[in-house]
Parts: sequence; structure tokens; C-alpha cells
Amino acid sequence: MNKILIFGAGKSTSYLIPYLLEKSSEAELRITIADLNLSQAERACDGHTKCSAVKLDIFNEEDRYNAIAAHDLIISMLPARLHINIARDCLTLGKNMVTASYVSNEMEALHKDVQSKGLLFLNEIGVDPGIDHMSAMQVIDEIRAEGGKMLMFESFTGGLVAPESDNNLWNYKFTWNPRNVVVAGQGGVAKFIQEGKYKYIPYHKLFRRTEFFEIEGFGRFEGYANRDSLKYREAYGLQDALTLYRGTMRRVGFSKAWNMFVQLGMTDDSFELEGSEDMTYREFVNAFLPYSPTDTIELKLRHYLKIDQDDIMWEKLMDLDLFSKHKKIGIANATPAQALQKILEERWSLDPEDKDMIVMYHKFGYELYGEKKQLDAHMVVTGKDQRYTAMSKTVGLPVGMAAINILKGNFDLTGVRIPIHKEIYDPILRELKEYGIQFTEVRKPYLGYNPDNVAG
Amino acid sequence: MNKILIFGAGKSTSYLIPYLLEKSSEAELRITIADLNLSQAERACDGHTKCSAVKLDIFNEEDRYNAIAAHDLIISMLPARLHINIARDCLTLGKNMVTASYVSNEMEALHKDVQSKGLLFLNEIGVDPGIDHMSAMQVIDEIRAEGGKMLMFESFTGGLVAPESDNNLWNYKFTWNPRNVVVAGQGGVAKFIQEGKYKYIPYHKLFRRTEFFEIEGFGRFEGYANRDSLKYREAYGLQDALTLYRGTMRRVGFSKAWNMFVQLGMTDDSFELEGSEDMTYREFVNAFLPYSPTDTIELKLRHYLKIDQDDIMWEKLMDLDLFSKHKKIGIANATPAQALQKILEERWSLDPEDKDMIVMYHKFGYELYGEKKQLDAHMVVTGKDQRYTAMSKTVGLPVGMAAINILKGNFDLTGVRIPIHKEIYDPILRELKEYGIQFTEVRKPYLGYNPDNVAG
Repeated sequence: MNKILIFGAGKSTSYLIPYLLEKSSEAELRITIADLNLSQAERACDGHTKCSAVKLDIFNEEDRYNAIAAHDLIISMLPARLHINIARDCLTLGKNMVTASYVSNEMEALHKDVQSKGLLFLNEIGVDPGIDHMSAMQVIDEIRAEGGKMLMFESFTGGLVAPESDNNLWNYKFTWNPRNVVVAGQGGVAKFIQEGKYKYIPYHKLFRRTEFFEIEGFGRFEGYANRDSLKYREAYGLQDALTLYRGTMRRVGFSKAWNMFVQLGMTDDSFELEGSEDMTYREFVNAFLPYSPTDTIELKLRHYLKIDQDDIMWEKLMDLDLFSKHKKIGIANATPAQALQKILEERWSLDPEDKDMIVMYHKFGYELYGEKKQLDAHMVVTGKDQRYTAMSKTVGLPVGMAAINILKGNFDLTGVRIPIHKEIYDPILRELKEYGIQFTEVRKPYLGYNPDNVAG
Repeated sequence: MNKILIFGAGKSTSYLIPYLLEKSSEAELRITIADLNLSQAERACDGHTKCSAVKLDIFNEEDRYNAIAAHDLIISMLPARLHINIARDCLTLGKNMVTASYVSNEMEALHKDVQSKGLLFLNEIGVDPGIDHMSAMQVIDEIRAEGGKMLMFESFTGGLVAPESDNNLWNYKFTWNPRNVVVAGQGGVAKFIQEGKYKYIPYHKLFRRTEFFEIEGFGRFEGYANRDSLKYREAYGLQDALTLYRGTMRRVGFSKAWNMFVQLGMTDDSFELEGSEDMTYREFVNAFLPYSPTDTIELKLRHYLKIDQDDIMWEKLMDLDLFSKHKKIGIANATPAQALQKILEERWSLDPEDKDMIVMYHKFGYELYGEKKQLDAHMVVTGKDQRYTAMSKTVGLPVGMAAINILKGNFDLTGVRIPIHKEIYDPILRELKEYGIQFTEVRKPYLGYNPDNVAG
């Protein structure tokens, strides 16, 4: 039997665990689910004979070590900062490991040791990062195999609300960690390359420098730049590409409206508001506006942000009850970002029947036999409900598929890795199609940013 | 004889050293000037019999210790980060010390030990910090002595160019460390209180939330908020004041124009530009603008910042030759802030005959016998030339005066201190008047922010 240990039975495992259980006979699996919350682990097992639930505190070193020692492959679905302790035990004990998280510096530092032990620690094998790497590299490798030269790569992913559940003015709901949405884009300039020119967008302009695209059947979207579009330049072998841009997708109009919060200073997470616990929403707004003994907070805000009488931006703020004199932040020593999150969660939380939607969009520009070509590829996955979300599906399935492939010995690769290699992405992308996770490719005339090569 | 050791013979000592030499007979002083650059120290002594120059490397612990041991009082005019080594030696050796710099956390930590040895380490006794503390506390203590209650305190200081040398469109030149000007306001939200309400201004709005004031004979000025206006709230005993605001002064229009750089992202000091050494000014500008194969950088910038055809903002940019195709940044791995500083220094450096000007403006609001009153006080000091600057005068003279008062045993205070105590500010402010450094007080009807006490 192949014994898999999964750390964490949270939201993101609602597809992963049923998938592994479904494959348990064919792949001869025994699955242990370890969680601090035993009943959550038990619910995840759902009475399956091949599954056992255990209560485990990740910070209890002995329990953690013993649990890892008793299994063949370890999947960590815990928050990213907790992976490293598991990884060190896996290294000591000679176990392979899978996570859907970004490779941390600490994880990266294990690469040589992991490799010399012949192990594979496969990370970034969720949706973003994960499916983005795999789907991009498959196309890029194909273009290169044909003899093409990459000119442009742009890639956008968004965790959105499905059209049938999209019923607020922002066309947005929290489908994942709200905090990440509120502080998105902070902590440094957004950097990318367009037509060979490095471009830098400061945080306070990020949401006013969006790009647009249309996906047939799903309408228009916009994207704002991620902090470091150049992060995977070498990993993808795109050192010579003239345009590299990675971004986050939203419905059109979201970024312009979100920019109101950025401009006010409400997304700041670096200081604590005085008296936040008893602060009303209205007082929270006023803390970012000039003092006036005679003017309303409403008019001060309209004037400050130049919002005309008939501007839909205003309705978006009203939709959040942002000027309420009664509702309180209710969090002691809250940062503005925490206070804003509280306000948004009231309106942007999913209703029980709401469905989420993951959208991914790649643009590949390349030159083949002297001709410039463009290939756009998109993937749209819609969730079923609040438990069986598109997010959980697109994160969990690649993780599960990777785990089984590793147990079957299908990957030769060793070390700390991400899924940019053909031996990994080919079987997983193929299998994902069986679950409706697939890309639609559209060939287009090369649009790029400078198709006619005008001096810019 | 009273032996004074001065560390550093740089720009800021051009008044300090002549002042001490002038007082050397009356106060029985012998002065040693220690600098890494011996000829600079010798020039500062100017052949005076009571003065000796020594070459000294502050990082040579033995030399530093021996030099301190041989003197009665130590003045450090070195960069602020270097004071702490001197302070520790002074503590060990039982010597008093004077600096014009902000009290660092490390310096503050010595307070108890300094006090228990009966020593005084007097810091923040330059202009800002220094004269601002003294002049404010003198008025605040007087108001309290009369039985008044403080309602409001606002204070602004600016290091500017004198009107007779003010000949560029920005009405600004670098009269002190240019780097501090370029990165001013960064590193956290600006926080203050107006009429009992806490207000927060994010960096990207700081230069659009200015206050204005007029000084008779000197015209109009504007001020933008310092990062922490509440820093001295307790030190000044202003816990109950409804309005506390400290800021930096500029000529009207500077901040609105400076905001263009902030909006573009050119003041960012947190990342390095790719290829900065060979980058032209024009390419530097373009790095912050969207890519276009067909539009000029000029029009892209006008559109991005919404600068109309006839807007003076545009002329201010042209004045800097910001779009030059020939001039290069010429600094490897430059941050945007470093690149911008290079561009500005070309136009904003003082000409040999240029004069600087220090302007300070305080507003005090208080209630006395049920009546609200306001007192405004301002100080304007103009420099003579590039050597005898207003900055050097207003920094150096208080330092020198404090040193002599300490040597004469005029201060009872011990510990790590700033000049907010009557025994310090009274004699120094009195003596500063002899050198033309004085405040003009104007009594006004209470203006505050809410004179009629309307609910806001």
C-alpha cells in the first residue's frame, strides 16, 4: 500500500480528499488526514475504509515526526509558513512531499539536500501557482519545439464570483482569503517588461493601470499587474522575451472602484487606528478626510476623490453602507486594512448557494519562420457551491494527481521543484481535462504592444 | 580652563566654532576640533590660539576614548547614527555631551545611567529639532502660568531659499541634505489630530493636503504634515489639546508640483532601476509611463497626470530638463529617488552667492478665563552666503550656547534630555536674540479649525 499523509483538512481539501479516495483502490492508497480539529478530519474521511483521521498539532515535534515516519508521501495543505517544519522532517525521513504554495526561501535552501537524497518536494502545484505554470510551459515548450521564438508572455488569474451569483455592484465577492485581497499589490513596486522596456507602477497607481480582455461566453475582464512579473523569467526560459506581464483578473470596473480605498489610505496595513474598536464605519471614513466643522463626510469624500453626482463609484460605496453611523469596526487596534476587510466581508461574503469562478488567461506572442503569431488560451472553472468551489477544485486536483504520479514513480525529477517540466505537466494537464479543467486556445493575429515595430 | 571637544568640522559648524572661539576668553574655553579630515579641522580653527585641530577616526575606539577623556564637554556634529559610540564613552568617562540630533532609541536607553552619574546629554538643540522645542515651550509654559489651557498647537519649519536667490519655477533649492527632501514623508502614514479627531494621510496624498499661512513681509507659505505630529504630545504636556499638527514649510505651489513625482513613483527608494547608469532622463520618465509605440513620452505624461496645455506644472517639469534625450542618470543600481535627486541637483543647487532662509511658524490656540485666544509666532533667518547659511547659524548657535551654559553649571537637569525645560530654553532664547534669531508674535482672534464649536 502507498500511504499518504495529508496535513490539514480545511476548505481547500474538498476535492483533494475525495479524489484520492476515489483513486485509492486503483493506486493502492491508504490516506491519513491529520488536523488539529479531529472532527474536521473525520468529516473529510467521510467513513471511507481507506481513510483514517488523526488529531495532530503541527507544533508537536514528536507527533509530527512520527506521523511523517509512518507514511510514504506527505501533502501539506496548511498555511504556507508551516510547510518548512514538515519539509525538514520529510528530508530527514526520506519522504516525498507536495504543496500548493510558493517555494519559500527556506524551502528553496533544501534543494541540494533533497536532490542528493533522491527525493522530490513538489510545490506550487495548485491553481495559481500551479495550473498557470503547467499550462504556460506546455504551450511555450510546444512553440519552441516547432522552432518558434517567444516574444511575449502575459498571464492573468482571478478568483471571482460566478455570473449567476454575481449580484453586487462591485461584481466581486470574497471566494478565498479576504485579507490577501485587501492588501493585494502592497509591499513594493509592480515591475514588468513591455516591448523590451522595464515599467514600474507604484502601489497608488496600480489599480489605474489595468489591461482589458474578453473571453467568449464570459464577457470582459480587467487585470492589474502583479508585483513581480519577472519572477519566473528564468524558470520559463523567457530571458529574451520583450514583454512579460503577470496580473490578477477582476471584472471590469472593480479596480477603478477599489482605487478609492487605496487613495483614501484604507488599505494600509502598517499602523493601528486609534480607538478602532468603538469606531463607526462613518468615523473610519472620516479619519482619512480633512477636518471640517460644517461639511458632511459624504461631500468631503466626493470632493477628495472627485466623484461626480452621477458617478457609479458613489453607488459602489453606498452598497457597502460605508457611511453608517451605527455599524462599528469592533476590532481593537485594527489596521485600516483590517477595518476595511470587516466592512467588505459584510457585503462580499458568499451566500450559501453562491458559486465561485476561477478564470485564467494567457497570451503567447512568438515568431515562427519570420512571422509573428499570437495564441491566447483561457480556462474558466465554476464552482458548485460554497463547499465544492472552483478554487478548491483547481487547487486540490493537481495536488492529488501529483501525489499519485510521484507514488507511482512517474517523475524522474528530484529536488525542490515547481511544475514547469514536461514530465510533470503533461500527465497532470491531461488528467485535469477529465475533470473539466482545460484551456481553450484561440489563434489570433499578433497584437502584442507594437505589432508594426514602430520606434517607441 | 573648560575643555570642549567637537567631533566633526563640516558645514553645520560654520557658526558654532566661531561662536565658541569668540566666547573663549570670557568662558575660559579651550576647543579641540576632531575630524577625519585634518585640514578641514584646521580651517575651522582659523589659527585661533584657543583652538587645536586633530585628525581623528571616530571608529578608532582607543583614539576616540582618549580624546573624550582629555576634555570636559563633548559636542558631536557628526551624522546622528555616530553619536551613540561617543555617548557611551562620555557615560563611562563622566563627560557631558551636546548634539543637535533626534534622540535615538539607543541614546534614550542611556537616560537612567546618565542621570545616576549626574550627567547631562542634551540633544535636539539645533533648529528643528531645537529652536522649535524651545520657542514652543516658552509660549506654552507662559500660557499655562497665566492659567490658560492649550487647545491647539501647530508648528511648521522650512529650510528654503531666500527671496533674493529664489529664481526657479519651483521656488525651491536644496539648502541641506537633498536626499531628505526627496524621500520626505515616506515610511509611514502622516498622523495628527484636528479638533479631537485623529487624521491619517497616506504618502501618495500627503502633498495634496497642505495648509497655508502668510508671514508679513515674507509672503505666503504652505505646509505638509510630518509623519508623527503626536511625537512630542507628552513631552509638551499637550495630552488634552484638540489639535496637534507639525509640518514642513514650502513656498506655495511646491507640494502640488512635487506630487507629480510622487504620483509617477519617482520618489520610491525601495527598489533599483534596471540599467540606471546608462539611462537618459527621458528613459527614466518613460519607465513610469504606459508603453506606447506611437505616442510621445510628453503626451503620455500629460495624460497620466492630467496636466492641461497651459498648466504651470508642465513648465516646472520643463525647467528640470526632465525629458532630455542626452543627459544620463549615471548612477549604477540607482533607486528612483537617487535618480530623481541627480536630476534635481542640477537645477536646485545653490549658486555661490545664493542665500538660504529658515522659516518657522507656530500657532498656539488656548482658552483663558473662558475666552478662546490665538497667538501666532514666526521666525525668519536668512543666510549670508553658502558658507554662513541660516541653517548652520540656527543649528550651531543653540548648540554652542548650550555647551557654555552646561560648562558654567547653569543647568540642574541631568539625563538624556531635549530642550523643553525653562532652565534651558530661557537663557538660550534670550542669547539667540542677540544674534538676530527671534520670534515675532502676533495675537489673533481664535481661528482654530472650529472656532464656533459647530458639531463636525
